Amino acid sequence: MAEQELGTTFRPKFDANGLVTAVAVDDATGDILMLAHMNAAALAATMETGEAHYYSRSRRSLWKKGETSGQIQTVRQMLVDCDQDAVVLRVSVGGDGGACHTGARSCFFRAVTPEGGLRRIDE
Amino acid sequence: MAEQELGTTFRPKFDANGLVTAVAVDDATGDILMLAHMNAAALAATMETGEAHYYSRSRRSLWKKGETSGQIQTVRQMLVDCDQDAVVLRVSVGGDGGACHTGARSCFFRAVTPEGGLRRIDE
Repeated sequence: MAEQELGTTFRPKFDANGLVTAVAVDDATGDILMLAHMNAAALAATMETGEAHYYSRSRRSLWKKGETSGQIQTVRQMLVDCDQDAVVLRVSVGGDGGACHTGARSCFFRAVTPEGGLRRIDE
Repeated sequence: MAEQELGTTFRPKFDANGLVTAVAVDDATGDILMLAHMNAAALAATMETGEAHYYSRSRRSLWKKGETSGQIQTVRQMLVDCDQDAVVLRVSVGGDGGACHTGARSCFFRAVTPEGGLRRIDE
């Protein structure tokens, strides 16, 4: 298997749009908070500051999580997967501790039902 | 906010390549096992069979996880995020309980060090 898969060099594999996928996990509870994307600049800013930065595909710009909401994500640990096209950020969250713009704590606040509908799991 | 963000209708938002992002989580431990992608067919097969199917971007084909390795992922719960372009699958894993083709249990078996290297966290 390739060095990228088993080695000790961090060499992120950006996709055709220059992005890797990022999953933010609450370091205290292990809950998945959100999924977003990072370009090289977002990754560099995150590693330099210790606070999560993402790349907004809709706004096409670098974005510091929590800059307006106060929901700053301080990175406790960053993991990378075997093919280095995805990272997991274990974070402590500032402000009210949430991550979702809807007001929910996690963006994953609905379960798909067997009938193909959605059911809130956070109420 | 839109119905897609707060409503009870499951209406996945596929990207330009017809994919949503999927994160598989070990239902017993909460550990993130892997990140992959699903097209509409993979999503339908997963919901119909209760076992995780993904779409391989490199092989350009539908792929039932564990078909050759025995690491079948039985879906206990599927969550969707606010904008419905990502799902979390809480799964029970067959075979040896792992998910990564490298032999590691989770694909996220390396942490990025402050120096920008990688360190195995599963040994």
